[in-house]
Amino acid sequence: MPAASRSMDENELAHLPVERLAPLVARGKISPVELVETAAWRIERLNPVVNAFITLTIDQALDEARRSEREIRRGKRRGPLHGIPISLKDNIWTRGVRTTAGSKILADFVPDEDATVVRRLRRAGAIVIGKTNLHEFAYGVTTENPHYGPARNPWDTRRMTGGSSGGSAAALAAGIGWGSIGSDTGGSARIPPSLCGVVGLKPTFGRVSCFGVVPLSVSLDHVGPLATSVTGAAWLLGAIARRDPRDAFTRNAPAPAADYVRLFGRRLGRVRIGLPRDYFFGGIDGEVAAAVEGAARQTERLGAKIGEIALQDVAHSVDVAAEIAFAEARHYHESAGYFPERAAEYGEDVRRLLERGGEIRASSYLAHVEWMREERLRWNRAIEGFDALLAPATPVTAPEIGQKMVEIDGREETVRSALLRLCRPANFTGAPALVLPCGFTRAGLPIGLQLIGPLWAEERLLRIGYAYEQAADWHTRHPSGF
Amino acid sequence: MPAASRSMDENELAHLPVERLAPLVARGKISPVELVETAAWRIERLNPVVNAFITLTIDQALDEARRSEREIRRGKRRGPLHGIPISLKDNIWTRGVRTTAGSKILADFVPDEDATVVRRLRRAGAIVIGKTNLHEFAYGVTTENPHYGPARNPWDTRRMTGGSSGGSAAALAAGIGWGSIGSDTGGSARIPPSLCGVVGLKPTFGRVSCFGVVPLSVSLDHVGPLATSVTGAAWLLGAIARRDPRDAFTRNAPAPAADYVRLFGRRLGRVRIGLPRDYFFGGIDGEVAAAVEGAARQTERLGAKIGEIALQDVAHSVDVAAEIAFAEARHYHESAGYFPERAAEYGEDVRRLLERGGEIRASSYLAHVEWMREERLRWNRAIEGFDALLAPATPVTAPEIGQKMVEIDGREETVRSALLRLCRPANFTGAPALVLPCGFTRAGLPIGLQLIGPLWAEERLLRIGYAYEQAADWHTRHPSGF
Repeated sequence: MPAASRSMDENELAHLPVERLAPLVARGKISPVELVETAAWRIERLNPVVNAFITLTIDQALDEARRSEREIRRGKRRGPLHGIPISLKDNIWTRGVRTTAGSKILADFVPDEDATVVRRLRRAGAIVIGKTNLHEFAYGVTTENPHYGPARNPWDTRRMTGGSSGGSAAALAAGIGWGSIGSDTGGSARIPPSLCGVVGLKPTFGRVSCFGVVPLSVSLDHVGPLATSVTGAAWLLGAIARRDPRDAFTRNAPAPAADYVRLFGRRLGRVRIGLPRDYFFGGIDGEVAAAVEGAARQTERLGAKIGEIALQDVAHSVDVAAEIAFAEARHYHESAGYFPERAAEYGEDVRRLLERGGEIRASSYLAHVEWMREERLRWNRAIEGFDALLAPATPVTAPEIGQKMVEIDGREETVRSALLRLCRPANFTGAPALVLPCGFTRAGLPIGLQLIGPLWAEERLLRIGYAYEQAADWHTRHPSGF
Repeated sequence: MPAASRSMDENELAHLPVERLAPLVARGKISPVELVETAAWRIERLNPVVNAFITLTIDQALDEARRSEREIRRGKRRGPLHGIPISLKDNIWTRGVRTTAGSKILADFVPDEDATVVRRLRRAGAIVIGKTNLHEFAYGVTTENPHYGPARNPWDTRRMTGGSSGGSAAALAAGIGWGSIGSDTGGSARIPPSLCGVVGLKPTFGRVSCFGVVPLSVSLDHVGPLATSVTGAAWLLGAIARRDPRDAFTRNAPAPAADYVRLFGRRLGRVRIGLPRDYFFGGIDGEVAAAVEGAARQTERLGAKIGEIALQDVAHSVDVAAEIAFAEARHYHESAGYFPERAAEYGEDVRRLLERGGEIRASSYLAHVEWMREERLRWNRAIEGFDALLAPATPVTAPEIGQKMVEIDGREETVRSALLRLCRPANFTGAPALVLPCGFTRAGLPIGLQLIGPLWAEERLLRIGYAYEQAADWHTRHPSGF
């Protein structure tokens, strides 16, 4: 075991939120090399339990950490992430390091360049320790990966992490690395944080470049940060949010992205929060509902005004978004020459979804896209006057690995549908959505709160999330044994 | 018969290019009322022959002409089109005036607002005399309309006008109105000018709003002017080209649109023209080829530099664009509730195309859209350094009404394929394309020249077209009996 910091034990260091860690690194109290060694040591011990990583890049990370250390000694600091070890979901291209997308088909794919977000993170001083496990091709919500094994939830390793960015969330909950980058097409960067008790942010569509991220559904794909605190997510977003000529969708983003380093206070004066009860609070587990209502009351005590908000057609739009994802995913796999040519190399669930995507007619697809465009306008009109909607992230806490159905309030539902249905709206509206812990069940499983904002209003979401987080303090808990 | 101008006969007045007519109107030498009366009289006499109009708006036009006349007397002139009677293709919404789109399904459809282009034309002082015949739903290239009868080519009334904006071109060739607005998804505002010996311009995608124009294929639809001179087309473009918040595609257009009123000279110094021989000059009728080559030499004599240009994959892209149009057309007719519900009310050709559009899978459609996007980039790189490409507009002159096949160079081809194949490239690249007469066959049928420019380079196209037109003088000929 490496020395860690003289003044704290390894576990404490491993779970330190980045805003407390970074000043120690900046002042030379903790070396980036020590951080990478700590992460490596924990991976060695804990990854066999949680299966969060597909590929490790520790040697390269140590080289970078040494350079980082030299820079700090010379007084150079590239930004708040300087010298901080993080992980990347394995559908994000890394130059010279294989990027499997959790698939057998890309098991030996080694990109010859970094994704735009990776280039930006490196420039900001972050150090990549490895590539995390995910649902095959990011096309699912459980991270029960048939090729690399299931990721396991550190709060109860018989349970799933959620997906598709399951490895990223499991690593953070296990205290491996101090941040991660995931992707989110229907909730993939929010479902795992909800189930693993960490923070996940899906930014506004167009805020973060998707260049170099293996696509799932181009009109719904997003890239976003995971962290163990709201500030950590904000800092990661600050590093990656920017226009990118290589992702045409980023063109309309207000530039430059705000610097999210020092935005936050502990009160919520003049903040209006909407509770979208009709869709987001129906079919919710009782313990989840109670925790989310508790969070709403907490924001009220912090100064926010809470109001009800009515949203029409959300359930239908969720179905429409699913159809769009089916068609676009099929298109990508078809045009890449993977499907149907190599159908046998896919896991059964993904294969079925791709088959289904092949049945959608162009004219239906176009009708769905049109509906989605109109729904976006309706949604944005409906939430006018609110700084955020407050809702559960998922209607249930982590199911067991292998579990196909969940029972909520006496009604059976597939795990896939249950985990997706509260997250998808932020994908088809393009709205930013922040997930953070808001409590635990009696069985000790984390419960996720979701804040959904107006387009481009990440700053407000983060501000509300931070004030709540500091008051509630759920984020400082971590699973026993990790 | 109305009085016409004391100093010229009706035929002369009817065929006067707008740049010669407008100053007379401005100086009060000819009254807008006289112009509308002349048009009305000619419609009464000639429309039974050419079948260019579906609906007339003469009474309303007379009211507007009187107002226009009063304004001129008070010294008010709204622009170069002030008091000029024009026609509109009948798929362009006119408030309170039925807009059939050449269909039975919309036979009684009366829009409650004007299309954006109509609003702009009225604001510029133009006077609408009627709604012109077109291929049913603009979905075809012959204007053999099964519900309103075929439009007939004034140069030989046994022959077709081409389509889909056939009535607009026939009206102008017959000296009815001094301008028209058409739409163009695969050549609909250029094929009829080519076959009828007038001028047509498809502007850059996004230059002119499509709001209020019955859609055919949203990613390929354009709206553009037809006229009897290049200047006429330029003036109409100047009136209608502008961003429109109601057509999202116009957002990226450089604004404000140039004023195309006084751009033109008679020489072509420093102009580079490319001859795309491989695709655009293959399978061309001999007389058409000779006329187009003659036009190239003429521009050279005017000072232009002519070079060859190689374009890859154009034939494939034309097929891809057709598939996109099939799918998008089907989508519109399906989402409007017309097809398949009211399949029996369509003409057989359009019904078949809509059936075909229903067979396209979403993933194929997405692959086509992706190909088109890449093709646009390739095309724009290939034409760098050229101010325009010079090519035929159609490989043949006007076929006979009822004719299904044409023979070119001993090879049989459908009329549909022949008339579309040289026009479609400017739809999938979004490039501006100007068609104008460049000669006549021995049988006396007009031959159309096409100039295709870089994106947003309408001004250069119009400049080249004007210099050529003035030197060649084909535009002053008109069909006998009209």
